[in-house]
Amino acid sequence: MNEFELIKHCFYWPQNNNDIICAVGDDASIVQVPSGYELVQSIDTQVADVHFPASAPPQLIAQRALRCAISDLAAMGAKPQAFHLALSLPKDTSQTWLESFSSGLRACADEYSISLIGGDTTSCPSIVITIQVQGLVPAGKALTRDQAQAGDDIWLSGEIGRSAAALENILATPKIFRENDNGLAAAYYYPQAQIDLGQQLIGLANSAMDISDGLLQDASHIAKASDCCLNIESQNIPLNILSIEQFGQTQALQFALRGGDDYQLLFTAPIAVRHKIEDLDCYRIGSVRELAEKSNNNHNDNNSQGKWILLDDQIIENTAMGYQHF
Amino acid sequence: MNEFELIKHCFYWPQNNNDIICAVGDDASIVQVPSGYELVQSIDTQVADVHFPASAPPQLIAQRALRCAISDLAAMGAKPQAFHLALSLPKDTSQTWLESFSSGLRACADEYSISLIGGDTTSCPSIVITIQVQGLVPAGKALTRDQAQAGDDIWLSGEIGRSAAALENILATPKIFRENDNGLAAAYYYPQAQIDLGQQLIGLANSAMDISDGLLQDASHIAKASDCCLNIESQNIPLNILSIEQFGQTQALQFALRGGDDYQLLFTAPIAVRHKIEDLDCYRIGSVRELAEKSNNNHNDNNSQGKWILLDDQIIENTAMGYQHF
Repeated sequence: MNEFELIKHCFYWPQNNNDIICAVGDDASIVQVPSGYELVQSIDTQVADVHFPASAPPQLIAQRALRCAISDLAAMGAKPQAFHLALSLPKDTSQTWLESFSSGLRACADEYSISLIGGDTTSCPSIVITIQVQGLVPAGKALTRDQAQAGDDIWLSGEIGRSAAALENILATPKIFRENDNGLAAAYYYPQAQIDLGQQLIGLANSAMDISDGLLQDASHIAKASDCCLNIESQNIPLNILSIEQFGQTQALQFALRGGDDYQLLFTAPIAVRHKIEDLDCYRIGSVRELAEKSNNNHNDNNSQGKWILLDDQIIENTAMGYQHF
Repeated sequence: MNEFELIKHCFYWPQNNNDIICAVGDDASIVQVPSGYELVQSIDTQVADVHFPASAPPQLIAQRALRCAISDLAAMGAKPQAFHLALSLPKDTSQTWLESFSSGLRACADEYSISLIGGDTTSCPSIVITIQVQGLVPAGKALTRDQAQAGDDIWLSGEIGRSAAALENILATPKIFRENDNGLAAAYYYPQAQIDLGQQLIGLANSAMDISDGLLQDASHIAKASDCCLNIESQNIPLNILSIEQFGQTQALQFALRGGDDYQLLFTAPIAVRHKIEDLDCYRIGSVRELAEKSNNNHNDNNSQGKWILLDDQIIENTAMGYQHF
């Protein structure tokens, strides 16, 4: 097959969404946004041997890439609508690889009811996967990072640290992964984008984000955007039992604090709605405080070391928070 | 600067567009689509030493990447609204490189009134630039590839082949490019997305696309999507004088037929509007015909060699049309 035939073979499948006017195959896609809604969009790139092992099963690479992107929609309280795929591959990529990648992508797209509406395929020495996702949110209701209020509870949607714990196993044997494995690796390859919860949090949460770079670092983004301080209580962080079993309690906590890739939601909400959020099976892990240095209006990171995040009332320096890409 | 500071330094600039509810800095961007409009979107990737020389000036790499992406909006008749940038860079990329890239990106964004509303920066062995662009089109009015009608004139918005002619010079001396150069290379680094013309063609053209992979190959996309045949008249193709001067008439025509990267619009329109389109300074280069094999309803490329495109009434085989990425 030539380039166009191969793309058609792997990435054209029927879409069932009235918002999609034109999908894959023209210069551009066309969607409508229903009256009363806004469009939430995010773009995410994953690079072989940076974000996933190049030799991992292609269907898992696709699953993980799309799930991680969709998670940003969950963090905004949006309902998935559509996505575009930019796929850069080495010239010697086999049709089998591409078909496997496509099957994983489609399975994930079906699970989250999100339509593939466009893309670009290019040759590149590395495998680079960029996915742009979009979803709908009632106008003015999106969950952002900048509305956390002093006095808010801090919440987590579920266990964290499991994906970071999985990484050591995955890097040791990247090609081995059993389908339906419920071990650590499932958290890495099949992160669960909290789409339903995100939508339920509209009207309850003041701020929200998904945890991709680690709890402490991501919590600092809410703190900086909202100009407040987040105090995390380590004993209330839900740790994964498999992570504790393999690595011990202390390391499992470190994975939870500084490891990324869990894609649970971190959010803050007024105490008044605490009982409603407990009904959603979330974990209360701390509280939002006023900034200690209220007189300092310069939010430049260089001048604000260590005022954004407390762990058990102890200041955490910005440099000790988690993964940085550069 | 750390990762987050550097991104903020290079890619946060004021946006002036009432449709943008939330731009760079949260989990996702938020836009509104005005009532009566649809959202047109495209995603484009450019890879170093595949789509541009890795050592080219960074501001030109950015200009070219964004212009090529915006061209897809022109091809649909859309007005630019916003874009997302996914930028993958080697770990040793300098701050100077990033600042130069940013300045080129911003200059282009300002020229086309398109807002940078989100992105992702990752490390990667190669420079890989993916840009997702979006624009607005009156509902139901977008120009697509699938409505060409037998009897339509075929039109070009301007000269083609110049960018392909430029490539030889550029690859010879990738680092040398004078700002405000009006030579061949300007067509390569500063392709002019036909945004105004695209919008003017709504209601006039039956089908449209931009030429990125070469006239013959791209014309075949309109033919296949519209189930018709396009006959191109070679003597009516507008060739660039600089290309003719350096390479001669015969090679200049080959660049025009099979070279890509010009980003002129190729469109078809009824004869009834011929005079209106002549007023838009476009070039009439042929006509749309019914398919010779009208009884063959199988549109699979394997069964349809050479029925889509005629050049001066001679059949062009699919394999002789232009660039393929794989």
